[in-house]
Amino acid sequence: MAAKYFIRNITACLSRATISSHNTMKQFSLITNFLLTNRRVFTACPAGIEEKCNRLIVQWKENLIDEYPLVWLRDNCQCSACFDQSSQSRTINFSHFQLNQTMRHLTIHNNNLEVHWEDGHKSAYDFKWLRQRSFHHTEQQNWLKSNKAPYNTWDADCFKKIPVFDFKAVMQEDNILLDWLETLGVWGVCLIKNAPHGLGQVGSLARRVAFVRKTHYGEEFSVQAKADATNVAYTQGHLQLHTDLPYYEYKPGINLLHCHIQYSGNGGDSLLTDGFKIAEKLREKDPETYKCLVETKVTWSDIGQENGNHFHKIHHAPVICESDDGTIRRINYSQPQRDSHMAVPIDQVEIWYRALKKFYDLATDASYLIEFKLKPGEIVTFDNLRILHGRTAFGDNLKGERHVQGAYLDWDEVRSRIRVLKTKLLVN
Amino acid sequence: MAAKYFIRNITACLSRATISSHNTMKQFSLITNFLLTNRRVFTACPAGIEEKCNRLIVQWKENLIDEYPLVWLRDNCQCSACFDQSSQSRTINFSHFQLNQTMRHLTIHNNNLEVHWEDGHKSAYDFKWLRQRSFHHTEQQNWLKSNKAPYNTWDADCFKKIPVFDFKAVMQEDNILLDWLETLGVWGVCLIKNAPHGLGQVGSLARRVAFVRKTHYGEEFSVQAKADATNVAYTQGHLQLHTDLPYYEYKPGINLLHCHIQYSGNGGDSLLTDGFKIAEKLREKDPETYKCLVETKVTWSDIGQENGNHFHKIHHAPVICESDDGTIRRINYSQPQRDSHMAVPIDQVEIWYRALKKFYDLATDASYLIEFKLKPGEIVTFDNLRILHGRTAFGDNLKGERHVQGAYLDWDEVRSRIRVLKTKLLVN
Repeated sequence: MAAKYFIRNITACLSRATISSHNTMKQFSLITNFLLTNRRVFTACPAGIEEKCNRLIVQWKENLIDEYPLVWLRDNCQCSACFDQSSQSRTINFSHFQLNQTMRHLTIHNNNLEVHWEDGHKSAYDFKWLRQRSFHHTEQQNWLKSNKAPYNTWDADCFKKIPVFDFKAVMQEDNILLDWLETLGVWGVCLIKNAPHGLGQVGSLARRVAFVRKTHYGEEFSVQAKADATNVAYTQGHLQLHTDLPYYEYKPGINLLHCHIQYSGNGGDSLLTDGFKIAEKLREKDPETYKCLVETKVTWSDIGQENGNHFHKIHHAPVICESDDGTIRRINYSQPQRDSHMAVPIDQVEIWYRALKKFYDLATDASYLIEFKLKPGEIVTFDNLRILHGRTAFGDNLKGERHVQGAYLDWDEVRSRIRVLKTKLLVN
Repeated sequence: MAAKYFIRNITACLSRATISSHNTMKQFSLITNFLLTNRRVFTACPAGIEEKCNRLIVQWKENLIDEYPLVWLRDNCQCSACFDQSSQSRTINFSHFQLNQTMRHLTIHNNNLEVHWEDGHKSAYDFKWLRQRSFHHTEQQNWLKSNKAPYNTWDADCFKKIPVFDFKAVMQEDNILLDWLETLGVWGVCLIKNAPHGLGQVGSLARRVAFVRKTHYGEEFSVQAKADATNVAYTQGHLQLHTDLPYYEYKPGINLLHCHIQYSGNGGDSLLTDGFKIAEKLREKDPETYKCLVETKVTWSDIGQENGNHFHKIHHAPVICESDDGTIRRINYSQPQRDSHMAVPIDQVEIWYRALKKFYDLATDASYLIEFKLKPGEIVTFDNLRILHGRTAFGDNLKGERHVQGAYLDWDEVRSRIRVLKTKLLVN
């Protein structure tokens, strides 16, 4: 597409084009041609094509061509009047910004392309900077992916061994920290071993990344059986597969659960299923059920108090949440935290229950469920938007026999940390 | 719809129906009839109708009829084996749950309807509880609205006086606190006056509601001019209209800005526009522009460090974000924090800039923009998903002449607090 217009533009405007001399940059591609196209050249263009004319066309070596809209170039001028280096921010006053930008001429200075605008302003763009901002679809997609890696789903077969990291290494070595966070993004679950004895490890781990995401249960919370529990997790019973806090519109993204004391008898095992895998399976094998779970919003809620602070959370959302591009982005599932209010058309209710049962039966199926017993000093970390987790029942002593401490992290902070680490490690 | 089936069902199953005697409840509606319909009665129903038969039909006084799917009733059994009172949670193990529920018979005991299930289990439902969970569309919608009040948009004309609250009253009186939070939900902006002198007021205010939402700028942050600012807000220049932190996928919901020291000369005025109103106007008057701003995802970013902690946030989202039901739910707009990477098809770029310019020109138009100068002791509080805010330039002294302290709250916590307060104030 770009090439086609480029050729047409060459024919149309070669007489006015500024053709650069060869350039000796090595770090990226050698530039062979700059062709300036502006409004004046194309006043005779048919409607709809004119847009294409307000572009800078750069032909790199090997016939790679990039087009840059002039309005975008002007908007992203990197000079000190338009862009503040210390805050890395655009400072152009948008009220005074002109949409119709035209250029007088182009020059090249060192590794910069200098654009001399009709209004007298001059902008300089580093060639590498320009190449990195290519408007080619594939390169745009690659850039998006580099900022948020796509996930891989797993079932019990392909995931017999959970990725394992060493606590001390994560705390001390940036490359191990990065590896843990990236693995968590891709696979949704990692085990961290050899945490020091004592409480507070999840807080330390979270602060190594960014900071704890607080909820109405506080920052670090203890999961241990207690009388008059305000949450079913705080009992010794079987804890069915669930995601935490589905009643939060902004649901905490990552769960860190540190096994401080494990129950010594049978039980207290951890259960994990990849909710994205279950959703994918349904989408593939049973699209009606998938559709029902995507389209039916039910109500998630939590009423209670923690340390004297009362809460009453409500969020209305489907079990499977899709992004607008159809990717699966969040699973909500919690039997105890599904509200008895059900604002669903009555004719859909039984259909939805059937769909939910299929979802849950698949999630608890041995093909998808993994089960293991955490040892003291182990921290299981997982994506709370994606992974369903649970726990088998354990002994009937209500006091002190099992103690897991938890904390949350948010994906916003984790992805930020990944980018910072990648930049840092690349530079060093 | 319900009534139609009810009448058909009466004809079909009257001989098997259990018809209750009159009941004397006063608090809600008087029950006149219970009609039990179950699978056995309707084995001859055509496909698609049978679903309707697995329902409990309750006829209240004044011919009001409610239908309850049996599967929903069984799922929401309130007995101690199925529902844990202390955690207010369903405890039924969903792996063992039967979708096809049938009843043997019904009884009435005090204000409870007792359902005797085929498998021997007995469930009791308080009549008021049942009525509150009506499956009628209007009542479902009312319930949803009672949990998240709809917003009213405003322009400069209809909003010459910002709603004002007294700091001490908000801190001490629950009904004033509730009034402030509900007003914030509806109008998106409130002014709080007479805060004590000194820093830390926004933190106190946030903790009166729930707790501060932390970001990479910390919990309480100071907005004052400083050299090498990592954010354009930390300069003395004109701060264009924007929403804070558009680069957060989970964007903090409410901004609290306390004027600690105001600049004594001209300038430093606060600017506010209701972004939802601007979006609504565009949707009404210029649907093409609206559509472009809803459908075009651009990249919001922030790179820098605060107190030595580096961050690199990126979020890819449109300027106007709709809920899946088409309501406007979030505005992203920040000239400094829009990334130079633009993963938009090149043919859309100029169209999008034109749309953005229309949006911004409308937002800064005197018909929509309000301007006022905060006095020391005033806290402007506003919905950061909705309201665009800015500040006029002020004097050129970089040190200490104007000092605003800010903090964020999240809507999840605020809505929870509203519900808790409403319950508390209703009871007292």
